[in-house]
Amino acid sequence: MSEFTELAAKAEKLDATDELAGKRAEFVLDEVVYLDGNSLGALPANVPGRVEDVVLRQWGRMRIRSWDESGWWTAPERIGDRIAPLVGAAPGQIVVGDSTSVNVFKALVAAVRIAESTGSAASTGSGGSTGSAGSGRDEILVDATTFPTDGYIAESAARMTGRTLRPVTPAEVPAALSGRTAAVLLNHVDYRTGRLHDLPSLTAAVHAAGAVAVWDLCHSAGALPVGLDEHGVDLAVGCTYKYLNGGPGSPAYLYVRRDLQDRFDSPLPGWNSHAEPFGMRPDFEPASGALRGRVGTPDILSMLALEAALEVWDGVPIEAVRAKSLALTDFFLECVAAYVPKGRVESVTPAPHAERGSQVALRCADAGDVMKRLIERGVVGDFRHPDVLRFGFTPLYVGFADAERAARVLAEVLLRR
Amino acid sequence: MSEFTELAAKAEKLDATDELAGKRAEFVLDEVVYLDGNSLGALPANVPGRVEDVVLRQWGRMRIRSWDESGWWTAPERIGDRIAPLVGAAPGQIVVGDSTSVNVFKALVAAVRIAESTGSAASTGSGGSTGSAGSGRDEILVDATTFPTDGYIAESAARMTGRTLRPVTPAEVPAALSGRTAAVLLNHVDYRTGRLHDLPSLTAAVHAAGAVAVWDLCHSAGALPVGLDEHGVDLAVGCTYKYLNGGPGSPAYLYVRRDLQDRFDSPLPGWNSHAEPFGMRPDFEPASGALRGRVGTPDILSMLALEAALEVWDGVPIEAVRAKSLALTDFFLECVAAYVPKGRVESVTPAPHAERGSQVALRCADAGDVMKRLIERGVVGDFRHPDVLRFGFTPLYVGFADAERAARVLAEVLLRR
Repeated sequence: MSEFTELAAKAEKLDATDELAGKRAEFVLDEVVYLDGNSLGALPANVPGRVEDVVLRQWGRMRIRSWDESGWWTAPERIGDRIAPLVGAAPGQIVVGDSTSVNVFKALVAAVRIAESTGSAASTGSGGSTGSAGSGRDEILVDATTFPTDGYIAESAARMTGRTLRPVTPAEVPAALSGRTAAVLLNHVDYRTGRLHDLPSLTAAVHAAGAVAVWDLCHSAGALPVGLDEHGVDLAVGCTYKYLNGGPGSPAYLYVRRDLQDRFDSPLPGWNSHAEPFGMRPDFEPASGALRGRVGTPDILSMLALEAALEVWDGVPIEAVRAKSLALTDFFLECVAAYVPKGRVESVTPAPHAERGSQVALRCADAGDVMKRLIERGVVGDFRHPDVLRFGFTPLYVGFADAERAARVLAEVLLRR
Repeated sequence: MSEFTELAAKAEKLDATDELAGKRAEFVLDEVVYLDGNSLGALPANVPGRVEDVVLRQWGRMRIRSWDESGWWTAPERIGDRIAPLVGAAPGQIVVGDSTSVNVFKALVAAVRIAESTGSAASTGSGGSTGSAGSGRDEILVDATTFPTDGYIAESAARMTGRTLRPVTPAEVPAALSGRTAAVLLNHVDYRTGRLHDLPSLTAAVHAAGAVAVWDLCHSAGALPVGLDEHGVDLAVGCTYKYLNGGPGSPAYLYVRRDLQDRFDSPLPGWNSHAEPFGMRPDFEPASGALRGRVGTPDILSMLALEAALEVWDGVPIEAVRAKSLALTDFFLECVAAYVPKGRVESVTPAPHAERGSQVALRCADAGDVMKRLIERGVVGDFRHPDVLRFGFTPLYVGFADAERAARVLAEVLLRR
């Protein structure tokens, strides 16, 4: 039996025993092998009907009444509570809204203010003006390998709070932490390599230095357990259009740990974060709880599409998703090793499970052109500058036969060049 | 002939000669008199089909390819250019995205930085750090009667740029301006009273003081000519879910006058405002033009619903909208004066056309309860704390018979109390 038929047979067996296999039917998919769910998740089949109802009935017929009667006004916190179990958070700590970039700004400025007010995230206190590093905590550490927007926004947050931004790799964070550190912004999974960083130990190190930990969950939420509450994360942000399948540019979310909510001092205190938003009061009094993370009027069409999309998670344990994700990436790497001529690609995704997210990134000559050919042949991943082929494995709708076919087509493309 | 039949006949005549009357058929409406388009515009009839296409075909079938092939990536500036003629702006100066509150923050911080870099909006220059009032321009003036979110956000912008916020009424602005003024944030139309402020003369006064003028157009765009370019406005923001009918919480927009774009230094420099967003570069280099106002990934479902909604404006001169708007509010006030028992309501909307937006606000005892009864009888306006009945007149779909019926039902409700 050739390697091709052997691995194809193995894929068939793995698919037959996959307890999540039935989930694929809940998505709109076709014959394409879609390995770009880490950029834009596929369309859940229940979303179009929900969106139609929101547009035609809720907006078209009920109009302004829907703010109350269709639950529009409370959507940010209600949908936040729906995301919460996927990232290991108890209810009442997440609100949905704005882009990831805007939420990074809110979280990082608020983190600096928390650190300034007390010198430590773990201690209690309140208030305190910002604009100078009065606490002596004059540095923000940021993941130097991060998706760039986090770095750009962190630079602005540093500038506007009078701090210095210091880019370091996640591995360098423990050594870089000091009494000067106000806040640390880290990615849970690196967007390019797919490396999973050690959230529990890095968070503990940040806390030991008396600083505030902010995590970006864009590439981990919906792909693996995060354990925000368990590991004492202070603040977190994430997008919803990757593994959470909320749709193109669907709103992001912000997590503020319950015991920090009273000290969450937002740089964007819009009327939706007011204790009495319809009081139309000239003075700002922040709402209590996670609502402080809201800003302006919520974007209802996108938000309710996301709410429908999250229903596919009903009854799905994130541990099962993680187990399948690792099995998929293991199997894909096995197929790549078997099919692709030696030396043509090199995985930059860590081999150890503890360091791997839900994607495989292969360094490859002419990666941009190779990805174009893959897409022409029905295998959709993406290219990341300068030389990376990125393949995302979404356990809810990608199967083992998909992984085998992707590796096989990759080998064909490389052989014909 | 009674007043009732006289005014009803007059309404019929006015509707018969209304050149915009045909536009009503382009909206999903029913027997309700909908006078709340200044809070949430009615659903344009072409929106549901467009949204279905975006969800099912563009997201569902084309998936990630739609960022290029369906024009998702360029939607913020393309839709901005569609709004531009409605507010008197040449193309290339408006981007759509984020909420109004977030755009107020961008605009006001950028305004302070422009003022700091040169001491004057009209002169040239660039760069300069922010965080202290080095230019001596240490004050931001804000409309004290504004929709509260503008005041809350202005307070945050002042705090984060080391300025003092000084709330003044628009009438007090000329006297309050001085060499200490960095920026001024004003509403074109007051959300509560419907008062239209004198944008040309106030902008000129702000410029004469060497400060930067930021206008909030939420209650004027789509209801009356704004003339941003003509009057030399520096920066402007506005929402799209009122007179522009973009849908609940649809994205807001930001105008940056062309000759200020090089000096627009955003406090939210997300990856979408980078000169080379897919370069994934660690250093931030701002895009040129209006794109600098972008932040994170655009919210596609809401944005493309808005794009469809804007098509109803094709061939509609904003001057015709303004003429009908004034005729409608004049006629409504005439009907109210004729039908409602003396002393039961008092208009807080200015009588002179030059000072009136597109709504009528009536002060009334028990206004909350009165509005509830009006809505039960099919006349939908809204209540604004503490004692205001607010009736918005959207010239594209509200007619004179609607105005007459609203006044008649109001009189009936008040007579039966």
